[in-house]
Amino acid sequence: MALTVVGSIAFDSIATPFGNRQRLLGGSAVHFSLAASFFTQVRLVGVVGGDFGAAERAVLERRGVDFSDLEVVPGGKTFFWRGHYDFDLNTANTIETQLNVFADFEPKLSEASRSSEALFLANIQPELQRRVREQCSSAVFSALDSMNYWIENERDALIEALGLVDAVLLNDAEVRQLTGQPNLIRAARRIREWGPSLVLVKQGEYGAALYSKEGFFSLPAYPLEDVVDPTGAGDSFAGGFAGFLAAHATSEPSEELLRAAVAYGSTLASFNVEEFGTERVARLTFPEIERRFGEFQRMTQFEHLELPQPGS
Amino acid sequence: MALTVVGSIAFDSIATPFGNRQRLLGGSAVHFSLAASFFTQVRLVGVVGGDFGAAERAVLERRGVDFSDLEVVPGGKTFFWRGHYDFDLNTANTIETQLNVFADFEPKLSEASRSSEALFLANIQPELQRRVREQCSSAVFSALDSMNYWIENERDALIEALGLVDAVLLNDAEVRQLTGQPNLIRAARRIREWGPSLVLVKQGEYGAALYSKEGFFSLPAYPLEDVVDPTGAGDSFAGGFAGFLAAHATSEPSEELLRAAVAYGSTLASFNVEEFGTERVARLTFPEIERRFGEFQRMTQFEHLELPQPGS
Repeated sequence: MALTVVGSIAFDSIATPFGNRQRLLGGSAVHFSLAASFFTQVRLVGVVGGDFGAAERAVLERRGVDFSDLEVVPGGKTFFWRGHYDFDLNTANTIETQLNVFADFEPKLSEASRSSEALFLANIQPELQRRVREQCSSAVFSALDSMNYWIENERDALIEALGLVDAVLLNDAEVRQLTGQPNLIRAARRIREWGPSLVLVKQGEYGAALYSKEGFFSLPAYPLEDVVDPTGAGDSFAGGFAGFLAAHATSEPSEELLRAAVAYGSTLASFNVEEFGTERVARLTFPEIERRFGEFQRMTQFEHLELPQPGS
Repeated sequence: MALTVVGSIAFDSIATPFGNRQRLLGGSAVHFSLAASFFTQVRLVGVVGGDFGAAERAVLERRGVDFSDLEVVPGGKTFFWRGHYDFDLNTANTIETQLNVFADFEPKLSEASRSSEALFLANIQPELQRRVREQCSSAVFSALDSMNYWIENERDALIEALGLVDAVLLNDAEVRQLTGQPNLIRAARRIREWGPSLVLVKQGEYGAALYSKEGFFSLPAYPLEDVVDPTGAGDSFAGGFAGFLAAHATSEPSEELLRAAVAYGSTLASFNVEEFGTERVARLTFPEIERRFGEFQRMTQFEHLELPQPGS
């Protein structure tokens, strides 16, 4: 089934201990779309300025992302973020944010985007997420991402939006902040009471956990010697996860399907961080994804072995 | 095979958000011994004062731990630690430490303890660890634990001790501190170059990872709604891990055996934190361990599923 994503499109200037890059193509909807494009047809809804050029479009085109709902504000400038990461690559330090045309973003969905069977609401204002969700009445599977800013400033609107989706993706600090509950099992249960049957907790270098009706599933992050740039890792995770689920066209994914989706999400996130911005995922191939999925299986598998003498 | 452990024996006064307890039986060698006792014969080497009584001995006796090498300093007092944990149960805050008889601890191993085929050097001065290791020349498998204090103050002696053991257990911060290397894969490789073929990285609520010749294995922590008291979790992990390996009496454990050992270590650690001090592990049963081992398998297992249409 087709998958519509609504979120930010940005230029990112990024410095990490491994180097720096200026005005890279970025934004949550972009990272998400590229990752999801390996699994299903993606329709991208977002806004850019006149500075969004042919090179940026080409990256989306090569991955077959449908961006006919890309709104262009001719005299405007695209959302711009400048930040840096220190040796603790888990924390993004913002130096400069220019919302530009994104400040007044009002998602405009074509008939095609509204009719997608799957919907991902990337990290935007919860009230916008809610309105988009309501427009996409044919979506049998929907998910949203959010962040500490909305939890602090628009918690009620966020909880309302949560009531309309099947899955929510947050990092562990956000899950605790949203629920006021330090224990993640209790926190996930609280969130599931608000609506979403699936709570995905992103844990950066420690991997990800899924809380569902069936209980608990956890997967470590893929071990990498060089994490070059973590920007967009969470969105690539979401893209792999939601893209794989959307490909299977089911409103009630089995636990088996969900777990494979988490593994594909982790796989895409692991490629995302190997290079700056979208560089790695833009030239990724499906066989590379399959190979790493297999490595994920091998590095987490273990068997029960009997004791030579029975334990006591 | 029999397993000798050398380490601290203590009274712990502990406060957590879930309550507090005075003068609980504790210490690294005690937590280790109780956990390992489910798998193999354990010989405990340590020192206590005249205040170490029948009730404390009974806890060890009931688990069949051989403590004939327990040195008693009649007029002395047993090592005492007072600490508290806040809602972040990952960090122990020390209020008071009285080393008492442990300050002059000079491990005295009987012929039986020296002849064990497996040896665990719990967190004590690296120079003592080295001397004990040299005495136990029949040990075909040996491991050690350490902490930030020794990394800061006796790094050279610690690296020397590392050269004599097969496995080292540290938490992720300690691994980074010891090697000066933020990336855990590189850090583990550095440590393996110093001698131990196995590096176990304990990650608290995130689980544990094993770096071996075969590569990388990771297991999440068992999800618990109430972590009541994390004191001794790392030692219980070590006890489950080394106890299971010792039971298999092999000098070159297979990757399959090592992974099961990590899972038993995680299982024992998960029980340890459910109640204060040794309360939970002291009355644990082997069937309970086996049941939780199975839950660990179920919560980490996932399958590769084909896409309805091939990915692109």
